[in-house]
Amino acid sequence: MVHCLTNSVVQEITANVLLAAGAAPAMVSHPEEAGEFAAAADAVLINVGNPDPPVLEAMRSAVAQARRRNIPWVLDPVAVGGLGVRTRFAVELLDQKPTVIRGNASEVRNLHVAHEGSDAQGGRGVDSTDDPESALEAGRALAALTGGVVAISGPTDIIVSGGRVTRITGGDELMALVIGTGCSLGAVTAAYCVAAGNPYDGAAAAHVAFSGAGALAAKVSAGPGSFRNAWIDALYNGSNALPALCEIEEGE
Amino acid sequence: MVHCLTNSVVQEITANVLLAAGAAPAMVSHPEEAGEFAAAADAVLINVGNPDPPVLEAMRSAVAQARRRNIPWVLDPVAVGGLGVRTRFAVELLDQKPTVIRGNASEVRNLHVAHEGSDAQGGRGVDSTDDPESALEAGRALAALTGGVVAISGPTDIIVSGGRVTRITGGDELMALVIGTGCSLGAVTAAYCVAAGNPYDGAAAAHVAFSGAGALAAKVSAGPGSFRNAWIDALYNGSNALPALCEIEEGE
Amino acid sequence: MVHCLTNSVVQEITANVLLAAGAAPAMVSHPEEAGEFAAAADAVLINVGNPDPPVLEAMRSAVAQARRRNIPWVLDPVAVGGLGVRTRFAVELLDQKPTVIRGNASEVRNLHVAHEGSDAQGGRGVDSTDDPESALEAGRALAALTGGVVAISGPTDIIVSGGRVTRITGGDELMALVIGTGCSLGAVTAAYCVAAGNPYDGAAAAHVAFSGAGALAAKVSAGPGSFRNAWIDALYNGSNALPALCEIEEGE
Repeated sequence: MVHCLTNSVVQEITANVLLAAGAAPAMVSHPEEAGEFAAAADAVLINVGNPDPPVLEAMRSAVAQARRRNIPWVLDPVAVGGLGVRTRFAVELLDQKPTVIRGNASEVRNLHVAHEGSDAQGGRGVDSTDDPESALEAGRALAALTGGVVAISGPTDIIVSGGRVTRITGGDELMALVIGTGCSLGAVTAAYCVAAGNPYDGAAAAHVAFSGAGALAAKVSAGPGSFRNAWIDALYNGSNALPALCEIEEGE
Repeated sequence: MVHCLTNSVVQEITANVLLAAGAAPAMVSHPEEAGEFAAAADAVLINVGNPDPPVLEAMRSAVAQARRRNIPWVLDPVAVGGLGVRTRFAVELLDQKPTVIRGNASEVRNLHVAHEGSDAQGGRGVDSTDDPESALEAGRALAALTGGVVAISGPTDIIVSGGRVTRITGGDELMALVIGTGCSLGAVTAAYCVAAGNPYDGAAAAHVAFSGAGALAAKVSAGPGSFRNAWIDALYNGSNALPALCEIEEGE
Repeated sequence: MVHCLTNSVVQEITANVLLAAGAAPAMVSHPEEAGEFAAAADAVLINVGNPDPPVLEAMRSAVAQARRRNIPWVLDPVAVGGLGVRTRFAVELLDQKPTVIRGNASEVRNLHVAHEGSDAQGGRGVDSTDDPESALEAGRALAALTGGVVAISGPTDIIVSGGRVTRITGGDELMALVIGTGCSLGAVTAAYCVAAGNPYDGAAAAHVAFSGAGALAAKVSAGPGSFRNAWIDALYNGSNALPALCEIEEGE
């Protein structure tokens, strides 16, 4: 059961993707209820896309509960860098040591820069054509800072923590044309941190599942509309077959 | 035209399901507009999932209008029991005598317990593997309290009011893997209360349509992604064929 | 990149439709962030469906930025007429001279009447069986008032500005059974204003794409569930083939 505090654009697909991936979603964002609910959840997702002030309060409560109960929590720094409210909030949350930070290259770089106090280079929304390699050093630094894992999404995803780096290549370009594929990856990362027993393997497993399902779905899709459902079906059916559809490379 | 005050996760699927089922949705949740709008609606749905404070105000206005105009209104006590704000609010709304209460077994039991003033056993979100039979007595009690109908969802749905009980068996396990199938059932129940001319037959017809469409869609689906659309198509096409896909049992 | 301030029911489909149509969505509605973000966007959509008070503030900031930067902004007066808050707000925004106003016949008529100060005849939600021809004179008047373009949706869409009128016939009845096809048309209109280099041709191109994709999708759909995805696929694939699927008539 993943307690998702996420933006309203992607709530439905995030819930459906969690269900397809074998987890259970809960979206409780009332400030008073969020803390109560996080006390029963197995993991927490904090996605800072489009945050209302009361939702920021709910996020703080949920993170505090996650920390108290020592359950994994994932920070998705959506579009951090260009926008003041969420950038300050994401930097504030770094002190709460997210188990996993999951974003694209510009988000990871911007979060690192914002923490260092320099002026962030603004990302333009959630998508970035930036190469994840360009964020590897920022990812290493954030992982060192939090003691957690950083996952950088792109054509090749990079998982980094301590001295370990895993690169996962797969997926399909259509994934970038379906809203919420990245945001729901944060939610499934939270779920798989629990299932895998440790954050690094959980983050890697989530990225492998998404990439493999993307490759599988692309074969039977006529465009982004049909891809969306084929991809959810693939996540549901393919747990064993999906790793073989990705290239996975371990390094340092 | 069903005025839906529902949670943001399921607004889109609720609207699409109402349209497929031959009704029209309207989601007006601004506190000032909700009362105005309920004055033109044919039925009202109140889904307490994830309620913002201003939306609670909008819900109160819409219920007051529904009562004044004597149109059906449905209460969906999503995740009542474990969460304080919505539990107190749902109990408060019982005084406004909902035409139909629609929930799963734990929600119906928890709502009854909360009304009695005991400590509710927390439900974990909207899904419950609980057997609807376990909530039959709570359903009877709530129906007696409100003078309305209580519908308990599960593998076999139970509709109860006064001395009458109807059990509807059908559907498919994939329904639980698509977010909003339960929440949109509340909306279609509201619509069919109007179409059927009385709440009991309306609630039963809505549950029969959902179960029948679920059984039909499961035959042509590869997973929850494709199921979602096939199920909406079945609701749209199947109105005559759907009852034959369920087992319907009348009792007391 | 279209900055969409739109209602929560249609945020996901609006984003997916923009992506399929070759544009990029961003939904930033925090009052403080909305102005910041509009400073980087190429166009802005203001959809007044179900407006929260803080979102109204965000909309004002985004429109002010759009005006300052001289980028196109589209006003979608969803359900204006029957509901006080949004009607007053839409009339207020007319002073900011929307580049395009996009609505159905009753919305365009009601917006015109509300601006004139008479009592508007209430529209019942977003759909209207009203003939767009019934709103042609209101559309001409609003176009004259704002110096912009007015697009009236229906079985035959009408684009009007100055002495020019274009009628576009196509689509399919299933479009009215998928929530958000109208709302996402406003977003794509904003995007195509940029792509086409002028608002009139942009609005016409958006309506042609939607109608053509609707006609194409209807051929391969079993109901509104499958139609939704087939229609998004058609928008993605069909840019060259879509105009041939519509009747387009120029007039004055």
